[in-house]
Amino acid sequence: MSSDCDVVVIGAGISGLSAAKLLSESGLKVVVLEARDRVGGRTHTIRNKQVNYVDVGGAYVGPTQNQILRLAKELGIETYKVDVDDAGILHTNGKSYPLYGFFPSTWNPFTYLDFNNLWRTMDELGEKIPAEAPWDAPFAEKLDKMTMKEFINKHCWTKAANDYATLFVNVNITSETHEVSALWFLWYVKLCGGTTRIFSVTNGGQERKFVGGSGQISEKIMELLKDNVKLERPVVHIDQSGDSIIVKTLNHETYKGRYVISAIPPVLTTKIHFEPALPTKRNQLIQRIPMGSVIKCMMYYKDAFWKRMGFCGAMMIVDEEAPISVTLDDTKPDGSVPAIMGFILARKAFRLAELSKEERKKRICELYAKVLGSEEALHPVHYEEKNWGAEQYSGGCYTAYFPPGIMSQYGRIIRQPAGRIYFAGTETATQWSGYMEGAVQAGERAAREILCNMGKISKSDIWLTEPESKDVPALPITTTFLERNLPSVTGLLVLLGFSSLFTSLAAVGLFAYKKGLIPRACI
Amino acid sequence: MSSDCDVVVIGAGISGLSAAKLLSESGLKVVVLEARDRVGGRTHTIRNKQVNYVDVGGAYVGPTQNQILRLAKELGIETYKVDVDDAGILHTNGKSYPLYGFFPSTWNPFTYLDFNNLWRTMDELGEKIPAEAPWDAPFAEKLDKMTMKEFINKHCWTKAANDYATLFVNVNITSETHEVSALWFLWYVKLCGGTTRIFSVTNGGQERKFVGGSGQISEKIMELLKDNVKLERPVVHIDQSGDSIIVKTLNHETYKGRYVISAIPPVLTTKIHFEPALPTKRNQLIQRIPMGSVIKCMMYYKDAFWKRMGFCGAMMIVDEEAPISVTLDDTKPDGSVPAIMGFILARKAFRLAELSKEERKKRICELYAKVLGSEEALHPVHYEEKNWGAEQYSGGCYTAYFPPGIMSQYGRIIRQPAGRIYFAGTETATQWSGYMEGAVQAGERAAREILCNMGKISKSDIWLTEPESKDVPALPITTTFLERNLPSVTGLLVLLGFSSLFTSLAAVGLFAYKKGLIPRACI
Repeated sequence: MSSDCDVVVIGAGISGLSAAKLLSESGLKVVVLEARDRVGGRTHTIRNKQVNYVDVGGAYVGPTQNQILRLAKELGIETYKVDVDDAGILHTNGKSYPLYGFFPSTWNPFTYLDFNNLWRTMDELGEKIPAEAPWDAPFAEKLDKMTMKEFINKHCWTKAANDYATLFVNVNITSETHEVSALWFLWYVKLCGGTTRIFSVTNGGQERKFVGGSGQISEKIMELLKDNVKLERPVVHIDQSGDSIIVKTLNHETYKGRYVISAIPPVLTTKIHFEPALPTKRNQLIQRIPMGSVIKCMMYYKDAFWKRMGFCGAMMIVDEEAPISVTLDDTKPDGSVPAIMGFILARKAFRLAELSKEERKKRICELYAKVLGSEEALHPVHYEEKNWGAEQYSGGCYTAYFPPGIMSQYGRIIRQPAGRIYFAGTETATQWSGYMEGAVQAGERAAREILCNMGKISKSDIWLTEPESKDVPALPITTTFLERNLPSVTGLLVLLGFSSLFTSLAAVGLFAYKKGLIPRACI
Repeated sequence: MSSDCDVVVIGAGISGLSAAKLLSESGLKVVVLEARDRVGGRTHTIRNKQVNYVDVGGAYVGPTQNQILRLAKELGIETYKVDVDDAGILHTNGKSYPLYGFFPSTWNPFTYLDFNNLWRTMDELGEKIPAEAPWDAPFAEKLDKMTMKEFINKHCWTKAANDYATLFVNVNITSETHEVSALWFLWYVKLCGGTTRIFSVTNGGQERKFVGGSGQISEKIMELLKDNVKLERPVVHIDQSGDSIIVKTLNHETYKGRYVISAIPPVLTTKIHFEPALPTKRNQLIQRIPMGSVIKCMMYYKDAFWKRMGFCGAMMIVDEEAPISVTLDDTKPDGSVPAIMGFILARKAFRLAELSKEERKKRICELYAKVLGSEEALHPVHYEEKNWGAEQYSGGCYTAYFPPGIMSQYGRIIRQPAGRIYFAGTETATQWSGYMEGAVQAGERAAREILCNMGKISKSDIWLTEPESKDVPALPITTTFLERNLPSVTGLLVLLGFSSLFTSLAAVGLFAYKKGLIPRACI
């Protein structure tokens, strides 16, 4: 079978499908090839009797994610707010503390200064990193040669801040602090609007979910594209040595196009044999940015007992033995199907991948019982989980991470077309990269790059600014005078040092004066 | 086309071919599938009028590499010694110094202590790392969370030692100090017998080359295996869901076997679609160990003018602007075809990949002219180069590197069979991993794992100890009493600190005594 079209899109995740939708609406003939037997990629909505529906993959959206919000609205998909009305819990040193907002408060002034300085430093550095060219930041090379572990050790004095910063990294990028480049991580956080925006529920990246599940976005675009979305077609070969690009699938089909959009994670392009071979730098880039590790776990209960206890269901858990590091309430917006969503992250996903599903379920329930202080957590009515590291056609989740040294050197290759192959996928985004928002931005941008190359739009129309969503407006992230001006712990120690130096000098002076060692005329 | 056999070997490099040879000699029916139109993998001997023959890939062998030496001898391939009779050159801070042996000597006692302590520390830690299970070293996790850059910064006081240590890393593993795990690098060096063995020409890893080129090893095994080696057969699919394993190639051929040996770098197994998908940990491991970057460059001259000048042609070049970091004489053993071999490594391979071949040639000649102090270097008669990063079916050279955090977590997966797929390739070796020696060890080990699984040999016969080569015996690597016992710079400073403390205390005591402040009875 051979099929001719303008653009062959590889990957029917949100990025590939938004590219295909835009190109199709521009009058081009598009075919989308998907390796799996479903669309959605790293989003996946499962439906069954016990859960009604559940997002076992990408699920959260929030203010400033205007492109995914616009697309969802156009497709008739509504959002609802994740319930964080009641207190969250911070569980650390074996104890549970109430948590308001997503950053812990503390009465220890050292810890407070340490936390304040950490978030401030990350955000200040982030402001200096160009979203579209982090390798051009003045300190790019230096920060890129440093792991986040080194960065945290350098900036945190207290164990509390160090532990929480590690959790912050684990939760946001499903990898370890020692695995990732500081430049890349600070860039990643910056693309989401900074430490507060990325980590917050209210007014942040986790404010909302889609009623009916995020999987609908891809499903509905597939309906629009009709039978131009081909499932179970893993691409094995791209030949652009001739006039048309020829794309071959594992089941021996051939598709011809004028352009290709690769809308899969960079590392998955290694699954394709290229003729001619990819350029050196891309050939090496795609080996260097692996996917993170996460098992997403949903525990279902007869009722939302945590709400009866005054908790919203959000937990931040700092405990090496705990399987789950972060949770959110996952009850449906109408109050039905009470559930808690939790992430098994990075090293823990590695360790727990070997256990049976039942064993993971048991350990999670025991953890929830301990953190919530309630035996009720031990009696779930249902459990769903998804280990994304096991997925051949995702490689892992949420997104690719950059080990030290890669961003400053290979980063600039990521959106560079390879001949007539253009690159989409959330990894190539310059806003909320790693999120559904980034997927849409990248998909539509790649589509417009092709339209531009065809002479249908001008170069200045490739990158568009999305108007703000009216349904999900963003409140500004503000800092207080104190937050901006309080010293770091180092700063405080220097201050104290100077103070004690002056105090000591004054005391010595006074002593000398009293002893008559300094003539009065000198005073 | 469909072909039945006992074992399908993927990859006709030295590892795959040694596996196939052993299995074939054991009476099994083997087929070897190779993606390229040639055998040899990361070894490749080019022949032409100008050079006669030249190894543009893996070339060097030396004492303790007994398996490749035995195999080569069996195939009738002889070795010759790389010429290092005259002085080498260390070029640093813009000046050239004679170099005897491969570690610089110095008259600065601080630098000497610093160097001595660095090599000693690396070797002492290496001794504590189990070759077959580096993740079991007592300090494994701590060292694995550290990059080699951190390790070097921690242990080196002087810029000279720091610079040279960086060169040492670049040369040995074609990657950057900030890109790689300290645990992995120390393990890698240990597998080669330590810092002196890995880096030396005489009595080390670069002592010899093969007369006629290393490519002959693969070519001669291919002859033995007759038409069971199939070229231009990139493997796209392995299906082990049924009784036989079914292997499909890009050109729609199907091979059936009872077992598969994957004898390609781990990252290249991503090019294959698996049914069922690989287990989670292997699915993630293969994304996490990219191949290094190197361009191997051979410059040919009318005569070996460097020998007339009293130099052997070996140069170590510490200079950020220099394209080449290390060279060796590459003249043929009979003195014909005078040439210098040089490596463009890691960050420099990235930077220089963009230039034209002519421009690289020009820059290299200019560098050689500067370092050797001779205009004759500007007039080569021929130039050969090979950029391994451009190779789709190598990914890079010499070998895979482990970024921080990967060895201690994923390392143990590397030789674990995935169903009936066994893993060879030099990356899976426990001796000279990354070298031709490791390729043979890994290939034969994987072959014997299958023989064991078939009940043809016992488990204790999987790992064999190779007798020492009689033609290339190893001299022991010895250290002197001073080398073992001299303090590090830190140690020296502590010593000096204590000495000055005691000296000061004594002086104060004497002063007080003289002033009569201490009663004589106290003394």
